[in-house]
Amino acid sequence: MQMSKVLIVMGSDSDLPIMEGAMKALKQIDIPYEVMISSAHRTPEQTAKIAKEAEKNGFSVIIAGAGMAAHLPGVIAAYSTLPVIGVPINGSALNGLDALYAIVQMPKGLPVATVAINGAYNAGILAAQIIGVFDQKVANELKNLRKIMAEEVELKNKKLQENLPKS
Amino acid sequence: MQMSKVLIVMGSDSDLPIMEGAMKALKQIDIPYEVMISSAHRTPEQTAKIAKEAEKNGFSVIIAGAGMAAHLPGVIAAYSTLPVIGVPINGSALNGLDALYAIVQMPKGLPVATVAINGAYNAGILAAQIIGVFDQKVANELKNLRKIMAEEVELKNKKLQENLPKS
Amino acid sequence: MQMSKVLIVMGSDSDLPIMEGAMKALKQIDIPYEVMISSAHRTPEQTAKIAKEAEKNGFSVIIAGAGMAAHLPGVIAAYSTLPVIGVPINGSALNGLDALYAIVQMPKGLPVATVAINGAYNAGILAAQIIGVFDQKVANELKNLRKIMAEEVELKNKKLQENLPKS
Amino acid sequence: MQMSKVLIVMGSDSDLPIMEGAMKALKQIDIPYEVMISSAHRTPEQTAKIAKEAEKNGFSVIIAGAGMAAHLPGVIAAYSTLPVIGVPINGSALNGLDALYAIVQMPKGLPVATVAINGAYNAGILAAQIIGVFDQKVANELKNLRKIMAEEVELKNKKLQENLPKS
Amino acid sequence: MQMSKVLIVMGSDSDLPIMEGAMKALKQIDIPYEVMISSAHRTPEQTAKIAKEAEKNGFSVIIAGAGMAAHLPGVIAAYSTLPVIGVPINGSALNGLDALYAIVQMPKGLPVATVAINGAYNAGILAAQIIGVFDQKVANELKNLRKIMAEEVELKNKKLQENLPKS
Amino acid sequence: MQMSKVLIVMGSDSDLPIMEGAMKALKQIDIPYEVMISSAHRTPEQTAKIAKEAEKNGFSVIIAGAGMAAHLPGVIAAYSTLPVIGVPINGSALNGLDALYAIVQMPKGLPVATVAINGAYNAGILAAQIIGVFDQKVANELKNLRKIMAEEVELKNKKLQENLPKS
Amino acid sequence: MQMSKVLIVMGSDSDLPIMEGAMKALKQIDIPYEVMISSAHRTPEQTAKIAKEAEKNGFSVIIAGAGMAAHLPGVIAAYSTLPVIGVPINGSALNGLDALYAIVQMPKGLPVATVAINGAYNAGILAAQIIGVFDQKVANELKNLRKIMAEEVELKNKKLQENLPKS
Amino acid sequence: MQMSKVLIVMGSDSDLPIMEGAMKALKQIDIPYEVMISSAHRTPEQTAKIAKEAEKNGFSVIIAGAGMAAHLPGVIAAYSTLPVIGVPINGSALNGLDALYAIVQMPKGLPVATVAINGAYNAGILAAQIIGVFDQKVANELKNLRKIMAEEVELKNKKLQENLPKS
Repeated sequence: MQMSKVLIVMGSDSDLPIMEGAMKALKQIDIPYEVMISSAHRTPEQTAKIAKEAEKNGFSVIIAGAGMAAHLPGVIAAYSTLPVIGVPINGSALNGLDALYAIVQMPKGLPVATVAINGAYNAGILAAQIIGVFDQKVANELKNLRKIMAEEVELKNKKLQENLPKS
Repeated sequence: MQMSKVLIVMGSDSDLPIMEGAMKALKQIDIPYEVMISSAHRTPEQTAKIAKEAEKNGFSVIIAGAGMAAHLPGVIAAYSTLPVIGVPINGSALNGLDALYAIVQMPKGLPVATVAINGAYNAGILAAQIIGVFDQKVANELKNLRKIMAEEVELKNKKLQENLPKS
Repeated sequence: MQMSKVLIVMGSDSDLPIMEGAMKALKQIDIPYEVMISSAHRTPEQTAKIAKEAEKNGFSVIIAGAGMAAHLPGVIAAYSTLPVIGVPINGSALNGLDALYAIVQMPKGLPVATVAINGAYNAGILAAQIIGVFDQKVANELKNLRKIMAEEVELKNKKLQENLPKS
Repeated sequence: MQMSKVLIVMGSDSDLPIMEGAMKALKQIDIPYEVMISSAHRTPEQTAKIAKEAEKNGFSVIIAGAGMAAHLPGVIAAYSTLPVIGVPINGSALNGLDALYAIVQMPKGLPVATVAINGAYNAGILAAQIIGVFDQKVANELKNLRKIMAEEVELKNKKLQENLPKS
Repeated sequence: MQMSKVLIVMGSDSDLPIMEGAMKALKQIDIPYEVMISSAHRTPEQTAKIAKEAEKNGFSVIIAGAGMAAHLPGVIAAYSTLPVIGVPINGSALNGLDALYAIVQMPKGLPVATVAINGAYNAGILAAQIIGVFDQKVANELKNLRKIMAEEVELKNKKLQENLPKS
Repeated sequence: MQMSKVLIVMGSDSDLPIMEGAMKALKQIDIPYEVMISSAHRTPEQTAKIAKEAEKNGFSVIIAGAGMAAHLPGVIAAYSTLPVIGVPINGSALNGLDALYAIVQMPKGLPVATVAINGAYNAGILAAQIIGVFDQKVANELKNLRKIMAEEVELKNKKLQENLPKS
Repeated sequence: MQMSKVLIVMGSDSDLPIMEGAMKALKQIDIPYEVMISSAHRTPEQTAKIAKEAEKNGFSVIIAGAGMAAHLPGVIAAYSTLPVIGVPINGSALNGLDALYAIVQMPKGLPVATVAINGAYNAGILAAQIIGVFDQKVANELKNLRKIMAEEVELKNKKLQENLPKS
Repeated sequence: MQMSKVLIVMGSDSDLPIMEGAMKALKQIDIPYEVMISSAHRTPEQTAKIAKEAEKNGFSVIIAGAGMAAHLPGVIAAYSTLPVIGVPINGSALNGLDALYAIVQMPKGLPVATVAINGAYNAGILAAQIIGVFDQKVANELKNLRKIMAEEVELKNKKLQENLPKS
């Protein structure tokens, strides 16, 4: 079976610092991905084309990040039946609440799987979880990552116990 | 000179009771309009086509109404350089605030002229004001409408003065 | 290959009228599901057990709906690496905004794929899209459903054109 | 035909850094404009005079920016039937949400075409779109600007593809 | 000394059911008032005239109620140095929050004394408190009203103690 | 040891339907309570007296419910070092958000233990939990109540399994 | 007639930088004032005493500023029938919205005249407007201040016209 | 009688700077405490264990702090009938409002005693107040602390009176 790929789309290179979180997560789990800049508003036809061809181009999941009136994830969802993960980006006076509402409140029939504001890392993890449904190696990596996260918490607790003076 | 036409688009017939406000305003000022149902998410290509062809089909202004993650006005704005007026529709638990944010917070270069939540009547008036910039007859109708509105307020005040007992 | 199953969890039978939307969507696409009532707060150990055993019990995706301080989806995500879809339910004075925040704002490493407030139908569609990544039959059903949705919009538009008097 | 002019009004010179966005947009499209400082509250009669005489002074569109209880666009709309574009300015503890509500929620009959918080550039573009309805040269400039915006996105994408290491 | 009068202004007779609260309070304290319907947007010059002449017409305080983008109190404050009390009216999808922000967030130098959403009764009491600063009879009435309010609470408590079964 | 008593205070009998939730919880756990109507604003001295004397009158915990600018819990906290539980009541256009903020955001040194909007039942349970810290019988009742709550969830699930047609 | 005095109260010296705005306004208009630090929660009896004695101590108006669960203005209003002006102070994660709600949403019968978040200067102006109702000298000062404000706007406009290159 | 102990739990060491407020308060009142890092999502079973064993490990009260979708206090409340105090931590774009809602809006039967955003110091005081119900020494310390707080306010006022020039 061919390796599943994830497509990461954002509307501008100014979103890159946030969206790198998704790349980081996918790298940790060894899932191949491609990154594209394409805007729902400035290059709508290119965006439509990318979304429509994502499946046949071998992508299993699409991650789209956008700020303000964040239409990109929803527009991609309109052109593809692949799972679309939306990352609301905090890029305006409204602290990303505008982007959250514009991504999560999709109408009946066209969901966007929304993660936290600026939560691109979690978008990568969610993409991996989706791929992990049918790829045991990825599922194992995710379980491993959970173990590492738990160990980090336990390590932090251990350090705290050593350093905090008992009351 | 040919009469200017307004295009009114909405994503579903459930938006019709609100969007009829725009038709009412345009009828009052005698501006021709066409109404179409086309969804940013369910019929994205039809919506793109409508937007791209609006200008050559003789429309001067586009009014688009939508609720929730209200992408329709922004998607239309992505495919046309005509002025696009967006009507946020109160159609969810968030009282239309989701639609307001998703319409008004458009990114740099692609404005949507946003009116009040459920403010379709005002969208019609704004379309008329735009047409009135170069159509003196419409401009005169708008001035006349203002006079009528003022007279209504004065009449209400007169009735109030007659009916309210002086303190 | 065995058919993928979806697990739908809610904290109380009072959430059933909303969560039936998820069942409806899964039925339309012919995806088997099971429904359980288990509370993150009232039966935390049962909830943890359900989440931990979901994968080995043959579930591919978990849908969890909750209102107010909606912890159920996040708690399930803590015990499973399967994709968890969260449905914020409007069940308090805060119109579901409390549930939305409590579901979507998950910390780093533990995403919940959040849909619109009361958007249980879309949770079902999203579950299907996830399964459709590796189940061609489901993917085809989703594409078919899109076509039906598009035709409905076109039909509504046709009816509108027949019934609306031209201005 | 005489060239259309745009009137830009703001209540204080402290709004200038934001409102320069509108001037920048109009310059790009070669539309003449005038800028005035006049306050809805501190110089109400001057503001009323400016609004009432805008049409006969040759203006086609008025752009008004204001923060906090942002009355300026609505007050101007009360005295003119020209299209009034409102720019909510983020100038208080409420992040411009106060200005947004005070501008967009205009009552029946008196719309203000509202753009994003601090979205003065888009106000300039919207003014150009309005003028472009009847001025082919402006319409062409707008189409050209769209092309440039699209090319910028494509260029950014190209650079990204060259610089990002494939995963 | 001549009796102080209060001017109550609202933009439409639809605001009358709320604004009657102000009249009720003033009647209780025996303060004369006049009520006028005049709109900040539909009859701006009439509103300016009313505000400018309020002082010489013998008014000591102005109460203005408005909903949505509630400009009326601020516009009146722009034309008078009398104390202006603003009543935000809940008349839109935003539950009066739009009106509250548009009234309370006035810029430097031009306060509007804002009361609760739909708090017209309190606007009347506040007007009386202002007049009571220099009118001992009104001050005494206010003190008396406080006593009555306290007695009502005590009476309610007494009834509760009689009717509630001790646990 | 004498039985611990809970004091329930509210500003008006209109709060009684909500505050009865607290009484219901305390009755279930067999904790004696007294209920008083006393207003932070209308009977401030009576309220201060009640708070100051609560401890010597044998109360262990105070529950205070209030809506709008909900000062009652904070004012009581200012006059007593007993634990004060605040119940924000949804009694205005702002859906209880005003009451929530006015209760929970207490300044440094003077906490109010805040529960959910309209969450009077939980205020009763929290009072019982506080008393249960040093009253084993109450602690046991609380554990028993948890068991009953869990059984109810399990029963609801059982009924659901019997009635839902398997997909 | 004796000169009217204004009492300015705040809960902590940390509020002083904001509340100095009120002093500045009163100085400009030559109205005597006294400033006191007294907390609604930390020194409730002192605060009650200050409020109860304000009238007999010769104060005409009370200005109270507070942040977070801002009870100070309301508590003072509970003990005095003088007009109380409340200044919501931005001193928490909620940007002063908590203070605004806790001040403006006062219950029936006990208004607090609320100004903008951090709007202490306007509180001073409002106090002056209240005193100006019966003190012609103060009323004249206020009218003079308005003239100065208008001239400042006009001067700013003049400078702008000289400096801005015509488009 | 054995000394009561307080358990302080947080999900990460990044919450430590805020949560140290709770330790500071407990130290002031001489109440012993233990601090643990355990995450509701990353170490759910460890968290459940800590909560379930808190009572038998001699803790009387649990303080839990968390940001974003702050489930930690509610998850602990699900496993213990001890009073649980929740501290919403401002750790996201939403300014802690997400954490506040996720902590305070607990469902029926499972309260979390919520304090202000970042209000860890008050959580410590509230824990002391709970212990003070049955520990006279702690109750006395709390009364003493109140006196100190009052004296600080009085001292600040005294300094202000000395330093402020009389107007």
